[in-house]
Amino acid sequence: MKKQIITISRSYGSGGREVGRQLAQRLGTPFYDKEIIEQVASRTGFEASYVENRGEYAPSGTGFGCALTRRNIYGMSPEDFLWTKQREVILELAGQGPCVIVGRCADYILKDRDDCLNVFIHASLEKRRERVLQLYGDAEEGLEKRLQDRDKKRRRNYQYYTQQEWGMAQNYHITMDSGALGIESCVDILCALVK
Amino acid sequence: MKKQIITISRSYGSGGREVGRQLAQRLGTPFYDKEIIEQVASRTGFEASYVENRGEYAPSGTGFGCALTRRNIYGMSPEDFLWTKQREVILELAGQGPCVIVGRCADYILKDRDDCLNVFIHASLEKRRERVLQLYGDAEEGLEKRLQDRDKKRRRNYQYYTQQEWGMAQNYHITMDSGALGIESCVDILCALVK
Repeated sequence: MKKQIITISRSYGSGGREVGRQLAQRLGTPFYDKEIIEQVASRTGFEASYVENRGEYAPSGTGFGCALTRRNIYGMSPEDFLWTKQREVILELAGQGPCVIVGRCADYILKDRDDCLNVFIHASLEKRRERVLQLYGDAEEGLEKRLQDRDKKRRRNYQYYTQQEWGMAQNYHITMDSGALGIESCVDILCALVK
Repeated sequence: MKKQIITISRSYGSGGREVGRQLAQRLGTPFYDKEIIEQVASRTGFEASYVENRGEYAPSGTGFGCALTRRNIYGMSPEDFLWTKQREVILELAGQGPCVIVGRCADYILKDRDDCLNVFIHASLEKRRERVLQLYGDAEEGLEKRLQDRDKKRRRNYQYYTQQEWGMAQNYHITMDSGALGIESCVDILCALVK
């Protein structure tokens, strides 16, 4: 079965989004990243910044205090409501034809389709640190801690909504270390696999 | 840095060894699998079958009963002694030049070299079941259980000697689902990466 939908999960700062962007460009297919945020924001009434921040980093905790804040929009927490809308948008976008989708548990959401290629991109802390400093101009102080914190939140988000382990090879068709292999190589490999 | 040493870790029945064999053939480099077993057997005096069985599946337990059996060859358990000799053989073989090494925590043992490409090959239980039935003529009864059991032992072996998690994407430069991508594709990708 030819793979038409490419889902890209990634650790923060690994360049996974850039791999997806270049891949979509080379394949001539849509690239869904901000698009998902905008559509989810429009359907939920949430601010785009809230959707962006919570869409991959919720839930924020698992303690009793957190449980109290749940179940207040259509009988569910705002975070779970966001998840259902995000899921709806991803299913619809994938239904429109070949595309590249970044993040947001798309690999899991589309698991019943057999035309998905699920990819995970990661890199060492050192390489990600370099990339984030260079591209996003993040403050150097506490950067490693922030990178680890983002990973932790993405891991928790993935685990919470998919009951699978984030970054475990068995959940993806291919995983690559973009720091060691280079972003271009990652794009070349995926391009060859899809074509 | 050009990658000269390819280490291949794999789940049982995924065809990881076959990927390694074909890759070595295409690259024209030695392929180390049985070779390691023979050299370790000759250096330790253990039977080759013991080296094969225990080299990737030890330790057999972590309870008190097991601890009692440890430390009886040069102050260490037979399994730890086997590990040190296996490690010695892998370091020596890698020192002789470009090669492909299958299993036995070679990725971890060679972690101080920057010319290694660390690969993990896996496949779904269903695909592995098919492969094992077809190639090794294993009995069908209880096969899935045996596959899961082997994975569990390899995972424990890897974790015990490397303090890392077996099959976690971040431990490898590239991981591939040979059942979904096909063995030939896996070989093509690795060949392109090394050349």
